[in-house]
Amino acid sequence: MAATARLPSAGRSPGAPPRIIGLDEIRAALAGVDLIPGIEAAFVAYSSGRAVVPPVGELLLPDMQADVHIKYGYIAGAPYYVIKIASGFYLNTEKGLPTGNGLMLVFRRDTGELAAILLDEGLLTDLRTGAAGAVAAKHLAPARVRRIGIVGSGTQARHQLRMLKTVTPCRDVLAWGRHPERLARYRDEMAAEGFTVETTADVGGVLAACDLVVTATAARAPLLLRDQLRPGIHITAVGADSPGKQELDPLILRRADVVVADSVSQCLERGEIAHAVRSRCLRPDDVVELGAVIAGTARGRTGPEDITVADLTGVAVQDIEIARTVLEAVLAGERT
Amino acid sequence: MAATARLPSAGRSPGAPPRIIGLDEIRAALAGVDLIPGIEAAFVAYSSGRAVVPPVGELLLPDMQADVHIKYGYIAGAPYYVIKIASGFYLNTEKGLPTGNGLMLVFRRDTGELAAILLDEGLLTDLRTGAAGAVAAKHLAPARVRRIGIVGSGTQARHQLRMLKTVTPCRDVLAWGRHPERLARYRDEMAAEGFTVETTADVGGVLAACDLVVTATAARAPLLLRDQLRPGIHITAVGADSPGKQELDPLILRRADVVVADSVSQCLERGEIAHAVRSRCLRPDDVVELGAVIAGTARGRTGPEDITVADLTGVAVQDIEIARTVLEAVLAGERT
Repeated sequence: MAATARLPSAGRSPGAPPRIIGLDEIRAALAGVDLIPGIEAAFVAYSSGRAVVPPVGELLLPDMQADVHIKYGYIAGAPYYVIKIASGFYLNTEKGLPTGNGLMLVFRRDTGELAAILLDEGLLTDLRTGAAGAVAAKHLAPARVRRIGIVGSGTQARHQLRMLKTVTPCRDVLAWGRHPERLARYRDEMAAEGFTVETTADVGGVLAACDLVVTATAARAPLLLRDQLRPGIHITAVGADSPGKQELDPLILRRADVVVADSVSQCLERGEIAHAVRSRCLRPDDVVELGAVIAGTARGRTGPEDITVADLTGVAVQDIEIARTVLEAVLAGERT
Repeated sequence: MAATARLPSAGRSPGAPPRIIGLDEIRAALAGVDLIPGIEAAFVAYSSGRAVVPPVGELLLPDMQADVHIKYGYIAGAPYYVIKIASGFYLNTEKGLPTGNGLMLVFRRDTGELAAILLDEGLLTDLRTGAAGAVAAKHLAPARVRRIGIVGSGTQARHQLRMLKTVTPCRDVLAWGRHPERLARYRDEMAAEGFTVETTADVGGVLAACDLVVTATAARAPLLLRDQLRPGIHITAVGADSPGKQELDPLILRRADVVVADSVSQCLERGEIAHAVRSRCLRPDDVVELGAVIAGTARGRTGPEDITVADLTGVAVQDIEIARTVLEAVLAGERT
């Protein structure tokens, strides 16, 4: 299993100071690294009960319109445990600062010593979310994707599309965004990365024209509706990571042949699945977990006409896995 | 209030990298700093509802006989929020490594940016626990302390005695410890710091001979018994910070005129008070909070014959406060 035990006594030697790894070094370490196999393995570990992931810690700062989340845990047999701190400070835009921020702490699981501090400023959360989208597409999208639909034009819409490169040869994209200028910028940037991007002001047209659709917005009411759905489509929803957010009509989940959650327990509390269960469009028993689909212990897509939906709310095993990947890449770079 | 708002826009400038502060720098920054007023203010903030302190996060690693605790929060109006990670790896002794480890992260409360990483390896937890003991003694011990009793001969027994220097002129000490060699070392080290230390193999004799007794052991059954108690004594128990630990006979808490908790809610779950409440020697309503005693909103000692007990289990406000103190001392040192 890629996520476990590759370096039984890795990290620093006992007594050595922790490795402090900044954003540039993280980017350099990850250049050329394929995140998909590790994230797949992490989901399998999670769904097979081999991950220890306590409840998410939450600190609210209402006067700053801010929240901080602490996700942490380890995968059985792995040499590290990881603590991730991620924050959203929603007044930062007015100050010319990014709203999202974060860092990851990597500790040796045998001694508790701090092996590394990854000052990623939230990049690794963005990347592992993008990688999860690609994993979902790899296991659930139809065999031949003719057109990718992207709903949203922000940072995560970029990561989602970029990561899909590793799991589909399709480079033809139809993109929708609320803000025309931001959408045009999205088109230009993604074109520079090898995609052919058409933009649209009609979000329903994305569902009608694409086989693989990713939604990555902060919408708080459904953007995609049931009546635009067509057979064979796969939809990955990554935007709704907190209880108030929603991107999909619950009727889409009712119509879907397969509904997949990154974490069933978490998706029953937040995300598209929570909305669909609350509105009685879906029963909890009808939801399967991504790690089980990857492992083959749960049924995913069975044919080209199936409609599949993946709801990704973000699980600590993804953070644990990407932190390990960065640290090992940095250490490997030092050895050569 | 010392704990709040002294530096409304302190820390780093927006966009600047975080300050990484190692153990030597922390020691240097704290040299000559009186921690007592800040810790007092932090307890007052906590007991008056001005602190936001979510439930402690806990990660257990049973195969390593280890646990990790995450304490975090902020004091209303303060420029920072703080996340502390503290671990106990109980097989480390065999590896020649300290069992306790930790670090603190200090974030700007206005932007969420990481202002500083304090790589204190657990020292700040030890110091803030020592300072809390001194605060308890300051507000609860009899006016004239003739002899200090120390039960335990480990790291925290050292910090407790050292911190008492700032709140009592008494330097006469009677110390008990389970291991004669470690106790002799304790005596010699504390003598070098200006104390006159007699040692004893009779723990009951400590209660009989001292007016101010601090227990700082990892005992899992009562060491101090009710029948050795005498009028006027103050006892601070700091050892029992997790549910299985216990240092005091619950009958001592029944006999006491005043029972003080650093956090009532936490002490009802762990520590001496939890044991006494469970064995019906104490009612929750009879427990007052240290911050309320300091603020004068709850009754502490009323006369020289009162028996008082303080049960200290450790509250995140202490971590928040000492992290602020270190960061401000470092920044002040850079300005001069």
